[in-house]
Amino acid sequence: MDVVSLGETMVLFTPEKRGQMRYSRSFSSQIAGAETNTLIGLAKLGHQAGWISRLGNDEFGALVRAAVRGEGVDTGQVIIDGEAPTGLLFKERLNEREVRMYYYRSHSAASRLQPGDIDEAYIAAAKYLYLTGITPALSPSCRESVFHAVEVARRHKVTVVFDPNLRRKLWGEEEARSVLKELVRKSDIVLAGISEGEFLYGTKDCTELAGHLHREGCGTAIIKRGELGAYYSNTLEARYVSSFKVARVVDPVGAGDGFAAGVLSGQLDGLPLEQSVARGCAVGAAVTMVSGDIEGLPDRRALASLLSAAAEDVQR
Amino acid sequence: MDVVSLGETMVLFTPEKRGQMRYSRSFSSQIAGAETNTLIGLAKLGHQAGWISRLGNDEFGALVRAAVRGEGVDTGQVIIDGEAPTGLLFKERLNEREVRMYYYRSHSAASRLQPGDIDEAYIAAAKYLYLTGITPALSPSCRESVFHAVEVARRHKVTVVFDPNLRRKLWGEEEARSVLKELVRKSDIVLAGISEGEFLYGTKDCTELAGHLHREGCGTAIIKRGELGAYYSNTLEARYVSSFKVARVVDPVGAGDGFAAGVLSGQLDGLPLEQSVARGCAVGAAVTMVSGDIEGLPDRRALASLLSAAAEDVQR
Amino acid sequence: MDVVSLGETMVLFTPEKRGQMRYSRSFSSQIAGAETNTLIGLAKLGHQAGWISRLGNDEFGALVRAAVRGEGVDTGQVIIDGEAPTGLLFKERLNEREVRMYYYRSHSAASRLQPGDIDEAYIAAAKYLYLTGITPALSPSCRESVFHAVEVARRHKVTVVFDPNLRRKLWGEEEARSVLKELVRKSDIVLAGISEGEFLYGTKDCTELAGHLHREGCGTAIIKRGELGAYYSNTLEARYVSSFKVARVVDPVGAGDGFAAGVLSGQLDGLPLEQSVARGCAVGAAVTMVSGDIEGLPDRRALASLLSAAAEDVQR
Amino acid sequence: MDVVSLGETMVLFTPEKRGQMRYSRSFSSQIAGAETNTLIGLAKLGHQAGWISRLGNDEFGALVRAAVRGEGVDTGQVIIDGEAPTGLLFKERLNEREVRMYYYRSHSAASRLQPGDIDEAYIAAAKYLYLTGITPALSPSCRESVFHAVEVARRHKVTVVFDPNLRRKLWGEEEARSVLKELVRKSDIVLAGISEGEFLYGTKDCTELAGHLHREGCGTAIIKRGELGAYYSNTLEARYVSSFKVARVVDPVGAGDGFAAGVLSGQLDGLPLEQSVARGCAVGAAVTMVSGDIEGLPDRRALASLLSAAAEDVQR
Amino acid sequence: MDVVSLGETMVLFTPEKRGQMRYSRSFSSQIAGAETNTLIGLAKLGHQAGWISRLGNDEFGALVRAAVRGEGVDTGQVIIDGEAPTGLLFKERLNEREVRMYYYRSHSAASRLQPGDIDEAYIAAAKYLYLTGITPALSPSCRESVFHAVEVARRHKVTVVFDPNLRRKLWGEEEARSVLKELVRKSDIVLAGISEGEFLYGTKDCTELAGHLHREGCGTAIIKRGELGAYYSNTLEARYVSSFKVARVVDPVGAGDGFAAGVLSGQLDGLPLEQSVARGCAVGAAVTMVSGDIEGLPDRRALASLLSAAAEDVQR
Amino acid sequence: MDVVSLGETMVLFTPEKRGQMRYSRSFSSQIAGAETNTLIGLAKLGHQAGWISRLGNDEFGALVRAAVRGEGVDTGQVIIDGEAPTGLLFKERLNEREVRMYYYRSHSAASRLQPGDIDEAYIAAAKYLYLTGITPALSPSCRESVFHAVEVARRHKVTVVFDPNLRRKLWGEEEARSVLKELVRKSDIVLAGISEGEFLYGTKDCTELAGHLHREGCGTAIIKRGELGAYYSNTLEARYVSSFKVARVVDPVGAGDGFAAGVLSGQLDGLPLEQSVARGCAVGAAVTMVSGDIEGLPDRRALASLLSAAAEDVQR
Repeated sequence: MDVVSLGETMVLFTPEKRGQMRYSRSFSSQIAGAETNTLIGLAKLGHQAGWISRLGNDEFGALVRAAVRGEGVDTGQVIIDGEAPTGLLFKERLNEREVRMYYYRSHSAASRLQPGDIDEAYIAAAKYLYLTGITPALSPSCRESVFHAVEVARRHKVTVVFDPNLRRKLWGEEEARSVLKELVRKSDIVLAGISEGEFLYGTKDCTELAGHLHREGCGTAIIKRGELGAYYSNTLEARYVSSFKVARVVDPVGAGDGFAAGVLSGQLDGLPLEQSVARGCAVGAAVTMVSGDIEGLPDRRALASLLSAAAEDVQR
Repeated sequence: MDVVSLGETMVLFTPEKRGQMRYSRSFSSQIAGAETNTLIGLAKLGHQAGWISRLGNDEFGALVRAAVRGEGVDTGQVIIDGEAPTGLLFKERLNEREVRMYYYRSHSAASRLQPGDIDEAYIAAAKYLYLTGITPALSPSCRESVFHAVEVARRHKVTVVFDPNLRRKLWGEEEARSVLKELVRKSDIVLAGISEGEFLYGTKDCTELAGHLHREGCGTAIIKRGELGAYYSNTLEARYVSSFKVARVVDPVGAGDGFAAGVLSGQLDGLPLEQSVARGCAVGAAVTMVSGDIEGLPDRRALASLLSAAAEDVQR
Repeated sequence: MDVVSLGETMVLFTPEKRGQMRYSRSFSSQIAGAETNTLIGLAKLGHQAGWISRLGNDEFGALVRAAVRGEGVDTGQVIIDGEAPTGLLFKERLNEREVRMYYYRSHSAASRLQPGDIDEAYIAAAKYLYLTGITPALSPSCRESVFHAVEVARRHKVTVVFDPNLRRKLWGEEEARSVLKELVRKSDIVLAGISEGEFLYGTKDCTELAGHLHREGCGTAIIKRGELGAYYSNTLEARYVSSFKVARVVDPVGAGDGFAAGVLSGQLDGLPLEQSVARGCAVGAAVTMVSGDIEGLPDRRALASLLSAAAEDVQR
Repeated sequence: MDVVSLGETMVLFTPEKRGQMRYSRSFSSQIAGAETNTLIGLAKLGHQAGWISRLGNDEFGALVRAAVRGEGVDTGQVIIDGEAPTGLLFKERLNEREVRMYYYRSHSAASRLQPGDIDEAYIAAAKYLYLTGITPALSPSCRESVFHAVEVARRHKVTVVFDPNLRRKLWGEEEARSVLKELVRKSDIVLAGISEGEFLYGTKDCTELAGHLHREGCGTAIIKRGELGAYYSNTLEARYVSSFKVARVVDPVGAGDGFAAGVLSGQLDGLPLEQSVARGCAVGAAVTMVSGDIEGLPDRRALASLLSAAAEDVQR
Repeated sequence: MDVVSLGETMVLFTPEKRGQMRYSRSFSSQIAGAETNTLIGLAKLGHQAGWISRLGNDEFGALVRAAVRGEGVDTGQVIIDGEAPTGLLFKERLNEREVRMYYYRSHSAASRLQPGDIDEAYIAAAKYLYLTGITPALSPSCRESVFHAVEVARRHKVTVVFDPNLRRKLWGEEEARSVLKELVRKSDIVLAGISEGEFLYGTKDCTELAGHLHREGCGTAIIKRGELGAYYSNTLEARYVSSFKVARVVDPVGAGDGFAAGVLSGQLDGLPLEQSVARGCAVGAAVTMVSGDIEGLPDRRALASLLSAAAEDVQR
Repeated sequence: MDVVSLGETMVLFTPEKRGQMRYSRSFSSQIAGAETNTLIGLAKLGHQAGWISRLGNDEFGALVRAAVRGEGVDTGQVIIDGEAPTGLLFKERLNEREVRMYYYRSHSAASRLQPGDIDEAYIAAAKYLYLTGITPALSPSCRESVFHAVEVARRHKVTVVFDPNLRRKLWGEEEARSVLKELVRKSDIVLAGISEGEFLYGTKDCTELAGHLHREGCGTAIIKRGELGAYYSNTLEARYVSSFKVARVVDPVGAGDGFAAGVLSGQLDGLPLEQSVARGCAVGAAVTMVSGDIEGLPDRRALASLLSAAAEDVQR
């Protein structure tokens, strides 16, 4: 495996109509999970990606497994749990600027993930372990699993990449801050947004935030600046990377997951970090151009076409 | 109010396609609840029906309330509970003879119904209290609420009508048998199916089952015999009522709830019991002729048209 | 033109769901008109067919014209009427045996058809004038138009073919009987169903009904006997024609219009009457095998395939 | 009742596709009625609202009643009329700036509303009688009913609120101007748009228009200025209220009805008029943010969220 | 006939969702063909238009013929070819700025069009022969057919109108340039876009391009300048025509075909060339305002409404 | 791998409506391929299955790969061919007994499969090589690939299983008969239907057919008898196996592929041949109970539930 991750993927239901969801009589289903978004992004670019999780022994679990596996992600480590259902999520698009989520995920199969589910050899054989701050918020056993995975990775010199991905609804502020910082400390690369930086270290400034991350012990800090692009720093260099322009942001959800896929893909291809971050910006932008988390993730052909179009824009 | 009932109503999602649900990408939503089916059946026939329940303070709660209220059922007693979500239900139609249900109802708002939610005056002013054996299976507080409602009804001479409506998935056999029998003992009229009779009293025989019910103290026993019609007995008479013929059973779900609506409607109209039971058969049959629990419930015009069509059939 | 007809064609809306129409939120649209059904059936079999009518100067008029013209029927005689809307029709499929229609056709453009709309030369150049008993029921001016068309046809030796097509909702019994009989008297060929025969002449017997029609002056009587096939008689012969077997009747509406198309097509091809009637049975049967009035009308290839399949069935 | 209104509500069909409606084969249905929009807006905000009207004894009447009642509006005064159908409406969205309506409402059940349908006690017990200029345009008996309702309200000191809501298609200019002015004279509060002011009094100026309204005898004039907000004046004060900003107007239809609901809601809550008008702007704006007349009407939670979001915008 | 054209029309499938087509499970079908777009535009404006082509003897051929004929275009010259299928086309809308086409048209029925299919008398009786540069790219026999049609037209003094409509996917650059120039030389009127001018004559300048076209022997050059409007020149005059403003371009495909319809319609109406070109701009703009190639083509009423709206805009 | 197969899988489009396909405007897409049906059936039952094929480098190829891989079949041997498109298939359901297929598969990517695409080691490591008579009919290179695969299998003692799966549309009778017989001769197990037996050896008799197969050198003959069940014979035994009863056959397509999956699954589980054939009957029957080729293929849980239901039926 090139990249291994662990976390929950749910079935997402979207009502056909915008406005209060009570008026919709028809819903479409997709899968939704931050970690699988990144893994699928990697698989579509030709990398080997593997997923550790639990799914219910039900039709929704079968749906999630088939969708993730169909995209080329290894699901051999996914446990089918006969005791709990697969989690669900409803996405109400109130209007063009407000979205409200309704979760049916408490006590889900994935929330029952536990350290014993993790095959040490599987992580040991990977180049990167990718984690988000969502999984430790799901349950105590999920949190233990995340920390256990980190221990395993560190023991085997697997690079740990962490995206705090703060979800305030899932846990209290104090607990969130403390756990996420602990994970920062154990990570080699951290991908953080400005608002997460503010939450964790009280600063909205890129360079200050990177400084905090470095002081925590994280070697490489990559700061996502939204429409402004990104910033990164490590022991060798510190640089701003400009954003990738899109005609119109149709659906911003999943951009961060695509960003992570792009950065990791660049690193796996042996690119200089600056180009990896630029690829992260491109993949993240591609995700926002269509509705859905994975529908916009590019394959190699689409990535090449995106980058060449952008190059043309620069020349004009 | 003519009839008051209490219980849970959920949002039901049905996949567009038959077969394993994993292959569906589109779902339609409706409401589903045994008690509201019966109350809506009564309201469509012009009776006054009232519903006691809890709904989540969410869009699904708003949907359920609007649908039930839109049909003319009084929802003034329904509590909007900010602490728990509205329950959901997915119905997988595997093939023409197998259906599988997936529930997301544990810890739902309705399962938090408690005796204090019940307004004594509201029940006292009703002619009938209608109960099913589903509600006491939802949670301890639901069970207490049901028994509390029964006490209130008995105190105020409100006729208690009970349909055991056995749901094995919701509780253990022993507990179910004991609670349902206890409710039989406190009811004036019991509407039971053959398989319920077998579960409760070990007999598949109509007259034996009615005998058991009478011995428990229930004055009127009405036995649902499916395609064979019905049987009833009380202190005055005991009779078989023939079934109402339908071209083709499209969806049997909800037939029992429609039967209850028909019987109660007949009683409210002052019909002889035999004719009330016949109306129950007709309304139950009408429900099976279309997909959905409430879509086939007749209004007065449709009921008249059904009964006259049946009369013609007899004359031929 | 081989066949010319006049009458109203409406836009038909069908709710997506069976059951009471109030529960549907989605409707599909098609066109619906007895005369255009027959004309389209003829055009699909390669005959020249022309339609005389009025349509509103609105989108529904444009839709009807494009659909009829697209099937190859000449619409050069259709008047676009700026003063009245195109008629509409809603079809509620209550269950597998009951259908209820809701019309929005009073004061429609077609109901304003008048004798002056009819181009004498257009009818004079046709081989057949095909009429149904629906058009004279729409309005006084429609009735006058029908009788005017008949006069024109008779003057120019154009064969008049008439299907009473009784619609009780549109007019009173006495008036209907009187007008339809008057049209029988002016027709060369009458295509009637058993129930129409009973309404007009008080008999359910084929041969008696044919006798009545002949006594009125109609030379050829063709009686539609539904699943039993057909019967015909003229001055030369009288015969029963067996029905065309179908696997399952999906939608009986439009069968009579297809029957007329088949009979006329056979006559236009110079077949013996027996074979024309048999073709009528085949085309009518084909219509019932799928949902919709025109979707099942066969082209030459499909007709050949139907007839050869039937021949095989006979040989077995 | 807090607010009572009378008028027609129809079933609205919208084709799935933009462009000429002839190309759509699928339509979705909703309800559409200016007065029920306002009443539903009030009910969603927790006020008691009641509707006086007629509906056909058909499925579309059942649909309208269930939808209005489901939203919590009292429909006890709605008469089911067996003699005439429920009105229909088709909405062709030609492109992003042109909409064309096709009505099938002449001779509808609602157009048969008459003074005798109005229960004096029902209006007498209300705080406000809300009227629009649409209803008097539907038929002579509708006009009489409106004036009768006004008389009843005035007799019982019920505040009369009037929105001219000019519909040029429904009646001639002279008649419209004369009747609408007559209603202005009998109203306590008038809510008018600039174009209506121009039509009635020949001025596009807010303060001049308010002056005209006051001179007619109307105590409170509230002028809707679209994207510019609103203006109001009475004997105490005269003020501009700024508009409520929205990300993008998706569907402007129904904004005025929402405005009325917001103003009345504020008054019922005992707010100063300025705040009531501001609430009117907020509710009206909310309606435009989603497709549909009622889908965007806020409940208390949504209203609070809207107002706090707006407050934040101001602080920035 | 006013205008005759020849070329291929296919069935176009569009996935329901934007983004990579692999994620769509539902597709809608329409027809797509540059020449029929123009012919339909002419027919909707009341002109006589005729189409020469081949279609497969299959359901897709029947669909194309019914759609084109339904719009009022004469299809009497269309040959049903039993040896080859009707061509198909899938349109993937990757995001708001990228579209990708997938063709299943090689060896299609239309690619088998040959000179012998062309009825000399049919073209001789027309006022205009309209050709695009797509047809000669389909196959050698198509190319011969186009040149044959041109010869016939010239022989009978039928005005030849040519739109190069360059499709790079269909043939090599050298061949395309050579054939298109040859067709320019044989045309009376050429409608060209700037990018086509660059491809053919190496200039992006309107007047230079017109000069090239005149030097080739084409009397009237009309240059399409997209959002900037158009330019035309002939022996009498040379002028810029301003563009027709639209609220928002929803789908630019088909605008050029609509432009051609507008120009030809103006000429057929005997308008001065400037006004014909302006009508071309208006019709082309109307096409872009809705999704689909023909759904936005105006009829006379819509054209009048467009032009009067534009006139109002100018006056403000 | 337990079972390896090779063949073409296409994207199948099904119109939403029954009847002539020209009337449908909406199509749904799925995958369709006899060999992948069997492989998916095996994977759903927990066996290791691998597929050898070619797909176009287009979205339809991506769709097919994701669907097959998502079900758990190994697609590591599938070649993405940049030179040819993925094949398509349209399925017109004319009525309840007639289906017509329209193929766009000539020159497809899969038809370019060649012997060099086959990795000897991949087949050598399998327990079974499963082949159908469709693949050799696609192209000469496909035929060579099939025979090459057989040679490889025989060399490595991999059991060859063959289903003639006669498709008359794809090749001539003589050629088909000769090639299929040649494959019978090289197979260890043949699964044949009665009509195939008649085509190949001129007998409709089970035992005679089995005799022919044995004389050709095939050790195990399994004859599919449709609703009558199956028959098998080898050197040890010969027996009839009764069919698996279904409520209603909804869609018979894919039943044979499911049968093969069931038989192979039984053999892989080490069952006696009789039980393997019975499992084949059960899986085949399950496929026919829902629409679609793979939607009815059971997983272990569903298979157990099917078999226990059948056992109950027997006991009654």
